[in-house]
Amino acid sequence: MAPLKLGMVGGGQGAFIGGVHRMAARLDGCFELVAGAFSSDPARAHASAAEIGIDGDRSYADFTEMAQAEAARTDGIDAVSIVTPNHLHGPIAEAFLAQDISVICDKPMTATVAQAESLLSAAEASKGHFFLTHNYTGYPMVRQARQMVSEGALGNIRIIEANYLQDWLSEAPAEDNKQAKWRTDPAQSGGGAIGDIGTHAYNLVCFVTGKPAVSLSATLRTHVDGRMVDDDARIALQYACGARAHIWASQVAIGNENNLTLAVYGSKGSLRWAQENPNVLWFSELGKASQQITRGGGGGNEAASAVTRIPAGHPEGYLEAFATLYREAADVIRSTGGKSPSIGAQDGLEGVRFVDACQRSSMDTSAWIDLR
Amino acid sequence: MAPLKLGMVGGGQGAFIGGVHRMAARLDGCFELVAGAFSSDPARAHASAAEIGIDGDRSYADFTEMAQAEAARTDGIDAVSIVTPNHLHGPIAEAFLAQDISVICDKPMTATVAQAESLLSAAEASKGHFFLTHNYTGYPMVRQARQMVSEGALGNIRIIEANYLQDWLSEAPAEDNKQAKWRTDPAQSGGGAIGDIGTHAYNLVCFVTGKPAVSLSATLRTHVDGRMVDDDARIALQYACGARAHIWASQVAIGNENNLTLAVYGSKGSLRWAQENPNVLWFSELGKASQQITRGGGGGNEAASAVTRIPAGHPEGYLEAFATLYREAADVIRSTGGKSPSIGAQDGLEGVRFVDACQRSSMDTSAWIDLR
Amino acid sequence: MAPLKLGMVGGGQGAFIGGVHRMAARLDGCFELVAGAFSSDPARAHASAAEIGIDGDRSYADFTEMAQAEAARTDGIDAVSIVTPNHLHGPIAEAFLAQDISVICDKPMTATVAQAESLLSAAEASKGHFFLTHNYTGYPMVRQARQMVSEGALGNIRIIEANYLQDWLSEAPAEDNKQAKWRTDPAQSGGGAIGDIGTHAYNLVCFVTGKPAVSLSATLRTHVDGRMVDDDARIALQYACGARAHIWASQVAIGNENNLTLAVYGSKGSLRWAQENPNVLWFSELGKASQQITRGGGGGNEAASAVTRIPAGHPEGYLEAFATLYREAADVIRSTGGKSPSIGAQDGLEGVRFVDACQRSSMDTSAWIDLR
Amino acid sequence: MAPLKLGMVGGGQGAFIGGVHRMAARLDGCFELVAGAFSSDPARAHASAAEIGIDGDRSYADFTEMAQAEAARTDGIDAVSIVTPNHLHGPIAEAFLAQDISVICDKPMTATVAQAESLLSAAEASKGHFFLTHNYTGYPMVRQARQMVSEGALGNIRIIEANYLQDWLSEAPAEDNKQAKWRTDPAQSGGGAIGDIGTHAYNLVCFVTGKPAVSLSATLRTHVDGRMVDDDARIALQYACGARAHIWASQVAIGNENNLTLAVYGSKGSLRWAQENPNVLWFSELGKASQQITRGGGGGNEAASAVTRIPAGHPEGYLEAFATLYREAADVIRSTGGKSPSIGAQDGLEGVRFVDACQRSSMDTSAWIDLR
Repeated sequence: MAPLKLGMVGGGQGAFIGGVHRMAARLDGCFELVAGAFSSDPARAHASAAEIGIDGDRSYADFTEMAQAEAARTDGIDAVSIVTPNHLHGPIAEAFLAQDISVICDKPMTATVAQAESLLSAAEASKGHFFLTHNYTGYPMVRQARQMVSEGALGNIRIIEANYLQDWLSEAPAEDNKQAKWRTDPAQSGGGAIGDIGTHAYNLVCFVTGKPAVSLSATLRTHVDGRMVDDDARIALQYACGARAHIWASQVAIGNENNLTLAVYGSKGSLRWAQENPNVLWFSELGKASQQITRGGGGGNEAASAVTRIPAGHPEGYLEAFATLYREAADVIRSTGGKSPSIGAQDGLEGVRFVDACQRSSMDTSAWIDLR
Repeated sequence: MAPLKLGMVGGGQGAFIGGVHRMAARLDGCFELVAGAFSSDPARAHASAAEIGIDGDRSYADFTEMAQAEAARTDGIDAVSIVTPNHLHGPIAEAFLAQDISVICDKPMTATVAQAESLLSAAEASKGHFFLTHNYTGYPMVRQARQMVSEGALGNIRIIEANYLQDWLSEAPAEDNKQAKWRTDPAQSGGGAIGDIGTHAYNLVCFVTGKPAVSLSATLRTHVDGRMVDDDARIALQYACGARAHIWASQVAIGNENNLTLAVYGSKGSLRWAQENPNVLWFSELGKASQQITRGGGGGNEAASAVTRIPAGHPEGYLEAFATLYREAADVIRSTGGKSPSIGAQDGLEGVRFVDACQRSSMDTSAWIDLR
Repeated sequence: MAPLKLGMVGGGQGAFIGGVHRMAARLDGCFELVAGAFSSDPARAHASAAEIGIDGDRSYADFTEMAQAEAARTDGIDAVSIVTPNHLHGPIAEAFLAQDISVICDKPMTATVAQAESLLSAAEASKGHFFLTHNYTGYPMVRQARQMVSEGALGNIRIIEANYLQDWLSEAPAEDNKQAKWRTDPAQSGGGAIGDIGTHAYNLVCFVTGKPAVSLSATLRTHVDGRMVDDDARIALQYACGARAHIWASQVAIGNENNLTLAVYGSKGSLRWAQENPNVLWFSELGKASQQITRGGGGGNEAASAVTRIPAGHPEGYLEAFATLYREAADVIRSTGGKSPSIGAQDGLEGVRFVDACQRSSMDTSAWIDLR
Repeated sequence: MAPLKLGMVGGGQGAFIGGVHRMAARLDGCFELVAGAFSSDPARAHASAAEIGIDGDRSYADFTEMAQAEAARTDGIDAVSIVTPNHLHGPIAEAFLAQDISVICDKPMTATVAQAESLLSAAEASKGHFFLTHNYTGYPMVRQARQMVSEGALGNIRIIEANYLQDWLSEAPAEDNKQAKWRTDPAQSGGGAIGDIGTHAYNLVCFVTGKPAVSLSATLRTHVDGRMVDDDARIALQYACGARAHIWASQVAIGNENNLTLAVYGSKGSLRWAQENPNVLWFSELGKASQQITRGGGGGNEAASAVTRIPAGHPEGYLEAFATLYREAADVIRSTGGKSPSIGAQDGLEGVRFVDACQRSSMDTSAWIDLR
């Protein structure tokens, strides 16, 4: 099957997540990158395009121009990946959706709730699809966990615990650290740890449990002098069924690299998973020996198998999980002749609302904010 | 050196912690158990005494009688271990302190703050000492951690995380489960998870960081229908320096046995420790490979060495940590001819105040309670 | 940079390793798969080609025809991946090398020493390159280990321990298990565990230590009734410097999936690595706390960085390591205008000689066989 | 129940294992140490006795005198612990057995086979018992493993793997290291790593599998210049059923403290255990998720429960396992009015024969030595 044609906005020289999206798009052969506006600086945009191997006539310095030009081509792109700083996600996505080109957007969806609501409307109006890359949901053991929870393997959910701990912002970053720079600029990022990694933890909780929270209470803190955004966030979430979730996202927890963990405790059993060794899922039933379920190994279920590429014991990692989202996006794009309802936009809006609610709660002495 | 003479109140047939105290008292040969009031039921008291190998004339059914009789003997006990349900700790301890007999008391000190304050006064007035067995502080790697923090190895403390997770109360316990029964009776225990294990986590935080908290906010919850006490507790603690601690104590976290963990994050480094594999301490400095410090191995410090019995790689466990407290109690009793200031009573009072503050906060929508 | 053009022989429907090679070839965008002889059965070959997205005119049922046809095209393939059963590697590789097309061959190089020697000559005579995919050498932490050993971080090497444990052949396989079938047919595989996974362990030892062994003693055993090849192999290797290596490869070690581990002990320190969690390397210096070096994290060296795609804590896995070999092959193919000396063929010959020596040793009561 | 009266030979100031035996004897209250010949140097013997708290009239400088004097007392010792260098075990044990005093002897039983055979005869002739402290067999999870193997949980045993890795002799020890000194003196130890720790691994294999080996092939090596004994030993053991065991004992494996591990692979399942975290036993059945059985937790069996003191998750360690052997010795001494057949002596003889066979095999180019 011939690959779909993909464009990219952002992700030029010096960027991190652009390269990740390119590898993820390539891994399963579902997409071929053929166009890009890799930077708003024309020289850098074209240099990046040349390096990546994009034809000169499909290298753009302006995303609006790119959206129009690609829409006008008979061999124009089927989808565009957006990998810019957060505050540009909305305008760029809307520009492509307006041309009925599908959008695969890095998280969070936007930097503000207003942008997210506007984007949601744009997605609903477009013949293109909107996909948000909450990449951790692509891990097979996360899929396994979701199926087990939905099948009732844990009984009634009581407690959910999601931590995302990093340490790379434990000190004020060097001046030339581009990644750190835009992430710690509130105008560009829309938030600090809460937006960068807290949203991942929140999305993971939503994805695995399938439950909408009723309300939240958050405490955002900043440990590094002079930093304008939070670098450590604690959130409690209340559910209608009585369950609670606790999220801790920190970028100053020395000794942690990308230590995203999830634990779900129910009345009958529990599941525990850690992103840094993602091929393993611990399952405990009350009164029995704990089991180590492995990707591809004994105890695996259909949801995990469906996104497993290689045999048990040969680790799949971050890029494979990311690639799964690209593969699933390709499947949707290919399978929906007419327009299906927008898929990732509602999730994306909820993520941005979560960040907003956390910020409001934290400024109001951690008051409980209704999420309904 | 001849062992000190020890008595015990509580810990008869069917009890758990009494046996632990007896093993801990024996391990280093510092104490010889010679008297006891092992139960308030005379038949059970004497049967237990016989089983344990206590002479009939030093088996008592009443602790007041025991305190007076032992004080009157020339070969009377030097110290008494109190291993009854929590609400009896205060009266029993006072009875022995009134006779100038030292007291080694299981935690929490008492079931109420009023009892604790009364006991503190009694301890100050007595020629005997008061010791509280916060046994996890006896682990060599906990001592190592305390020394490292006090020496500044972590820089300024930012975040402290202590979890104590169990699962043995995930369901309503069987009728004949004596342990579960008194622990879930508020009149006997003074609290549920918060008093039983939350106090351990709090004490561990205090012990390792040496910091007094300014205020706390707590949420106590009960997940099992019909239970009269909390089985899951979350506490945030604020420190004057800006640091925060978070404690999570749960008795319904399936898959956890006695999963007490401590992590301390500072501006320069972090320490992480887990009680279930207690001979290991993780130390991370920003930008360097994390190190696994082992009891008795490379990287160990004086505080750890002082309480280490056997070489690295031969695990010491719970009983050794407990025995360290007995050995240290023996050293104090032997070394202080005259009366030294009371040692464990202030800590004990703080522990009971902690439980009380948590209960008050939780009932008042997790309001912040001043601890000063 | 435009991708190189790649062909493939083998790897059609029902095969495992073909899909792995395709993903590995795609990940970094260095190769584009444009031709293939995916099966010796024409119907299956063409059906596979269609599924993979290969144009009909470049789908072949015969590898000789494919080599000639591709060599004749102006847009012919730059390299071919060989992913057939072992006994066909030699003839196919020679057919392509004869056309000066580079070869990327799955291991072991061939099923017999005679085939390997013939192939080595063919590689030397060709303008094409020969690459062998000992894929575990592509892991960043394996590269890290090699650099550390060569820099003397361990002192003089004393003991090397490499285990590769699986359990998928613990029982006689089902009739329709294609993977198990050819691997347990001596005519197709040239050996059992020794050839399938023992060669990987041996290659890893050679790669990390850079030492040629002087002699070996092997014991091959078969634990499943009726099996015609070994399923468990133990090999001792003697080195000129006095060091010894021990290799244990087993396909009947229940509870192990692809548990390949390497430990190197020297006079000053040691390294330990495990493939199932490959982003971590343990480094111990005598008398110091052991360190956990992570891919991309503190303590990493240049060799590891050179093959690292994403930040620390976001796990790279098996496919990334495999893809690194493809990327390195692409670099060689692109950079060598004229013919460089053959690269992987000598290693490949040594691997086949290793299998042969193990089989001879084992049949001769584990006699020591000279490898020089 | 009043404790039994215990004496000790060896274990004075500066010794290691003597203190271990004293703690183990005390932990469960089964023994009271009342007499000792703690050194062959009278001044040191008496100083040690005073420090330990032994009455002056029961402190001896000569073990023969001690045996006779204690036998003559109406309150004489019931048993003696022997914790001297290996070459003295035999003569001392025989002196006490000759007085019908039971002997609890550190391993290995003796330094030579001739001594062991003599001691076996002496044990059979005595009214006292002979116990050998293969202390690792006291771990609850080792007992669990033995029961599971004997019940057939693994099917037919195929492969047994026991490693005992240390690093404390990686360099020539300091002159004043008493422990290292006698252990590396062949006259006192009877062997190096093979006798000191290889015997433990061998005994563990025998204990868990219950199988007598038919023959062995051993390779003993010395990595440190000038050392007179082996510091690294590899042994293969053949069983009548076709199974093989492999033992690796090393004292130069940097990064290992007392890393004793056991794995038993059968046709249906496997068990894996590691002494440094001894409260966990991994159990894998073919095709199922691996289970983590914990001491006191779900999946535990009767053999483990019988030697478990405290609840799951509160780690028991090395001293508890050691104490279990003392408790079991006390039970035997108390329960056998008349003389039961000797218990530990046959095991002890087999251990010494194992060391002797390994040494002979190694000197004869690793020839297979019959053990029957």
